[in-house]
Amino acid sequence: MENSVTMSQSRTIQTKLVLPPDTNHLDTIFGGKVLSYIDEIAAITAMKHANQIVVTASIDSVDFLSSARVGDVLELDAVVSSTGRTSMEIFVRVRSKNLMTRKERITTQSFLTMVAVDEKGRPVEVPAVIGETEEERRLINGASARKEHRKLRAPMPG
Amino acid sequence: MENSVTMSQSRTIQTKLVLPPDTNHLDTIFGGKVLSYIDEIAAITAMKHANQIVVTASIDSVDFLSSARVGDVLELDAVVSSTGRTSMEIFVRVRSKNLMTRKERITTQSFLTMVAVDEKGRPVEVPAVIGETEEERRLINGASARKEHRKLRAPMPG
Amino acid sequence: MENSVTMSQSRTIQTKLVLPPDTNHLDTIFGGKVLSYIDEIAAITAMKHANQIVVTASIDSVDFLSSARVGDVLELDAVVSSTGRTSMEIFVRVRSKNLMTRKERITTQSFLTMVAVDEKGRPVEVPAVIGETEEERRLINGASARKEHRKLRAPMPG
Amino acid sequence: MENSVTMSQSRTIQTKLVLPPDTNHLDTIFGGKVLSYIDEIAAITAMKHANQIVVTASIDSVDFLSSARVGDVLELDAVVSSTGRTSMEIFVRVRSKNLMTRKERITTQSFLTMVAVDEKGRPVEVPAVIGETEEERRLINGASARKEHRKLRAPMPG
Amino acid sequence: MENSVTMSQSRTIQTKLVLPPDTNHLDTIFGGKVLSYIDEIAAITAMKHANQIVVTASIDSVDFLSSARVGDVLELDAVVSSTGRTSMEIFVRVRSKNLMTRKERITTQSFLTMVAVDEKGRPVEVPAVIGETEEERRLINGASARKEHRKLRAPMPG
Amino acid sequence: MENSVTMSQSRTIQTKLVLPPDTNHLDTIFGGKVLSYIDEIAAITAMKHANQIVVTASIDSVDFLSSARVGDVLELDAVVSSTGRTSMEIFVRVRSKNLMTRKERITTQSFLTMVAVDEKGRPVEVPAVIGETEEERRLINGASARKEHRKLRAPMPG
Ligand SMILES: CC(C)(COP(=O)(O)OP(=O)(O)OC[C@H]1O[C@@H](n2cnc3c(N)ncnc32)[C@H](O)[C@@H]1OP(=O)(O)O)[C@@H](O)C(=O)NCCC(=O)NCCS
Ligand SMILES: CC(C)(COP(=O)(O)OP(=O)(O)OC[C@H]1O[C@@H](n2cnc3c(N)ncnc32)[C@H](O)[C@@H]1OP(=O)(O)O)[C@@H](O)C(=O)NCCC(=O)NCCS
Ligand SMILES: CC(C)(COP(=O)(O)OP(=O)(O)OC[C@H]1O[C@@H](n2cnc3c(N)ncnc32)[C@H](O)[C@@H]1OP(=O)(O)O)[C@@H](O)C(=O)NCCC(=O)NCCS
Ligand SMILES: CC(C)(COP(=O)(O)OP(=O)(O)OC[C@H]1O[C@@H](n2cnc3c(N)ncnc32)[C@H](O)[C@@H]1OP(=O)(O)O)[C@@H](O)C(=O)NCCC(=O)NCCS
Repeated sequence: MENSVTMSQSRTIQTKLVLPPDTNHLDTIFGGKVLSYIDEIAAITAMKHANQIVVTASIDSVDFLSSARVGDVLELDAVVSSTGRTSMEIFVRVRSKNLMTRKERITTQSFLTMVAVDEKGRPVEVPAVIGETEEERRLINGASARKEHRKLRAPMPG
Repeated sequence: MENSVTMSQSRTIQTKLVLPPDTNHLDTIFGGKVLSYIDEIAAITAMKHANQIVVTASIDSVDFLSSARVGDVLELDAVVSSTGRTSMEIFVRVRSKNLMTRKERITTQSFLTMVAVDEKGRPVEVPAVIGETEEERRLINGASARKEHRKLRAPMPG
Repeated sequence: MENSVTMSQSRTIQTKLVLPPDTNHLDTIFGGKVLSYIDEIAAITAMKHANQIVVTASIDSVDFLSSARVGDVLELDAVVSSTGRTSMEIFVRVRSKNLMTRKERITTQSFLTMVAVDEKGRPVEVPAVIGETEEERRLINGASARKEHRKLRAPMPG
Repeated sequence: MENSVTMSQSRTIQTKLVLPPDTNHLDTIFGGKVLSYIDEIAAITAMKHANQIVVTASIDSVDFLSSARVGDVLELDAVVSSTGRTSMEIFVRVRSKNLMTRKERITTQSFLTMVAVDEKGRPVEVPAVIGETEEERRLINGASARKEHRKLRAPMPG
Repeated sequence: MENSVTMSQSRTIQTKLVLPPDTNHLDTIFGGKVLSYIDEIAAITAMKHANQIVVTASIDSVDFLSSARVGDVLELDAVVSSTGRTSMEIFVRVRSKNLMTRKERITTQSFLTMVAVDEKGRPVEVPAVIGETEEERRLINGASARKEHRKLRAPMPG
Repeated sequence: MENSVTMSQSRTIQTKLVLPPDTNHLDTIFGGKVLSYIDEIAAITAMKHANQIVVTASIDSVDFLSSARVGDVLELDAVVSSTGRTSMEIFVRVRSKNLMTRKERITTQSFLTMVAVDEKGRPVEVPAVIGETEEERRLINGASARKEHRKLRAPMPG
């Protein structure tokens, strides 16, 4: 295993056309469809970083800021935004684009935690992520504040 | 429109068999598949409550506490846990069950916010939810604390 | 293996939203889609009863009394309605519900025979089903008349 | 509308490869998958006969005599086996074929009733089916016995 | 392994109903959907000929001469049009049929090369194809001209 | 409509994880699945260039040089490689990547012709593509040789 991998090495881009089976009566995409795209790109990004099978440990809260309609294109962009011993935090941004008007909007963005596991599903170590640009390093440096925030768990029933 | 609807009137139950196409190399279900099941049952529950089309506004953070394997059964249970003017907070609980050993485990639980909309996608009013049992009322009463917690937005890059 | 299992222990409920890919030009659901939902819930119910893998041995005739449209909800309810040595008779009821008008209709109901099998596909014994309420016992008691009726096989060509 | 159409004009053949997502833990195909293939080919056959949209009114009981495994091929063959005023009886035969051993087996066979409908879902008239060979005419002549048998409805609960 | 197999023994027919999820905004089928149907029927035909697992080595250029719409039926017809040592050339013809007007049109036709392989993916020998009718023999005899044409590879970048 | 659009403006990248339902008994991806990915990315690229709905007119011959297995990642990269009056030639390259060994291989590459159409399916004009780098201009300049080659149609039966 390498000791460290640059952020750009595992950066992943996805382009999805919104099709009728992905949408409701209003012809707008289901939230659940977007969530499964986010999980898929996060898993690919984490596997490219760790060269290991990964599982989703958690996803931070997701706000759907705007909808996407049949015929729009979703562009997903994902990077490893920080690493722990066996876990990787992944940052995913989703933009929707109306192909006729060329107007672009942010649909949503979120952080997920993926954990590298062996064939028995036990956590295994991952290389550290390295930022090469100023922006990449700022993203990595924000990780500890995000980790603190995550501890403020919402009150759960029962 | 009725002024209020009991929680039990829209409670929804779903039973899903985990099949190979839903799983990774470890034969465990993708997080994204579970997320899309959660969004689907939340939408059905909200539509049963509001008699309106709904869209997903947000999903709170989700922790995947345990995995589910091919041949396991996922049981999802969803209720309207509080209502605003046009939005409904939905509480979804997911349990996985090994059919051979009858062992049950909590996979995850989460709150989503669904908004009722008209044919143009504009928010429309929804009836209030009413709790009939002690437990239901406790769930509804927790809504304001959950709302406060949601305001503590995680720090976002850029 | 337990000697007997109550009917309520394996009762299974399913809620499906009718989506465009499930429907024809009239926006009404395909019969084949409903049949595959019926088989799926029957298999889950039988597996919950027997703690074994099951295969479908037969399905009794099915009449589609009314259709369901895009946006309707199908509610499926299944129980083990009687048991043989290795086979289980499953009773499935399908109701459709228009979410806007709250009107409910019976779509269809049917009996299936599921057989518990080992890893080689050979039939294995299942526990007996026990009815706890008057209605459950009546359903179980009707099994022998249904079995007699099943023997009146339709004339098959060639 | 023609007054009559020969059986051979609407005869339909389908060849399906059994793939992993269609199968259970034993790598054998789900009954529900076979049922949805049967409904699909019956609908195509009826539409070819009637030049109209059709809906499934009923399917006679189906016995699954043998299973099919991943890698096997299912061959479905369907004909209009008799006609009423607005309904068509369709006969579907399903054979499975192991491509490595060339061994063929009957999986199941069944009769369905499809009804031609207009855009509002109201039954419309269909042409009569004509048998050209001895075997075709025998199949059509068996229709009244099958219709009688269908009236012996199984006892339904409640 | 037999030394030779007649063309009619592996001929395969497929009938597909064009459904909304297979189509774009114009309600016409995606080219990629037709291509995947062509590959599927070519694989089944080659497996029926060779009694072996097969992989797609190549597909000749495909012109989409006419489109098919929701509610149309696609009829695919495939034969082994010549054989090499381990490869089979498959000829696939796709016709679309408007069920309401009974009008038929050629959608496309193409040749594919499928290679029989063992469990490690290594090419294995296949039986020769035999033409029984004049037309079948003409198709087989055209193979060498098609092979020559295939060598005129298009200029590839880089 | 703009008169011209740079090649980089419509360049599209896609990353696909090979999953069990996309594969055969050897756990290698179906040719038809790759073909449908190629068509999908070509359509998105053409729509981004033309701001119009597009249909697939043709795909040049495709050689599958190497296979991809469950767990591999496919990376597709597509550009508009030349434009006519209403048609766009799209160049698609597909690489497969083993995530564990980081080994990359070319799976295939191909040219497709997409045509921009209006709501009635009639061809409409598209902007010209502009190459900004040396490599992009070389790709565009190769178009007339590719066009010549395409005229050497393979001999078709009957
Ligand atoms: C994720 C999982 C492997 C963690 O197992 P565990 O026994 O808690 O392992 P550990 O305590 O060693 O934690 C491993 C890493 O995961 C992180 N982690 C565990 N739970 C987490 C959560 N809910 N959110 C974020 N990170 C989490 C830990 O912080 C640790 O990170 P580090 O190694 O970088 O410090 C386990 O909970 C699991 O299998 N969950 C189900 C995953 C799954 O199948 N998801 C798909 C849908 S159900
Ligand atoms: C169902 C199957 C396992 C029965 O095998 P079998 O050799 O007939 O076994 P048995 O004679 O021991 O019968 C086992 C049980 O199945 C029942 N059974 C068999 N065929 C049946 C039928 N067509 N309808 C109802 N019950 C049936 C028997 O009555 C017996 O019940 P019991 O043990 O409660 O008394 C076998 O026919 C099979 O594998 N069929 C295919 C199942 C399948 O794959 N279905 C999915 C789609 S093809
Ligand atoms: C099938 C349907 C159109 C029949 O409507 P209806 O009001 O009963 O109409 P009619 O009484 O005029 O019957 C029309 C024909 O259907 C036949 N029919 C009706 N119900 C039937 C049944 N359960 N089994 C067999 N045939 C049936 C009648 O015998 C009649 O045939 P004929 O014209 O050849 O003599 C209606 O029941 C329906 O829409 N059902 C739902 C169909 C559907 O959506 N199926 C998919 C899954 S839910
Ligand atoms: C097809 C494949 C097995 C050929 O392997 P190879 O090492 O080139 O094997 P060989 O040189 O022994 O060739 C085997 C046969 O395939 C034929 N062949 C190889 N490449 C071909 C191509 N691009 N077009 C047509 N035929 C081809 C050869 O002519 C030979 O035919 P013959 O035995 O009848 O004379 C190999 O290229 C492969 O695995 N490709 C990927 C297939 C795949 O997975 N497709 C799905 C999507 S990626």
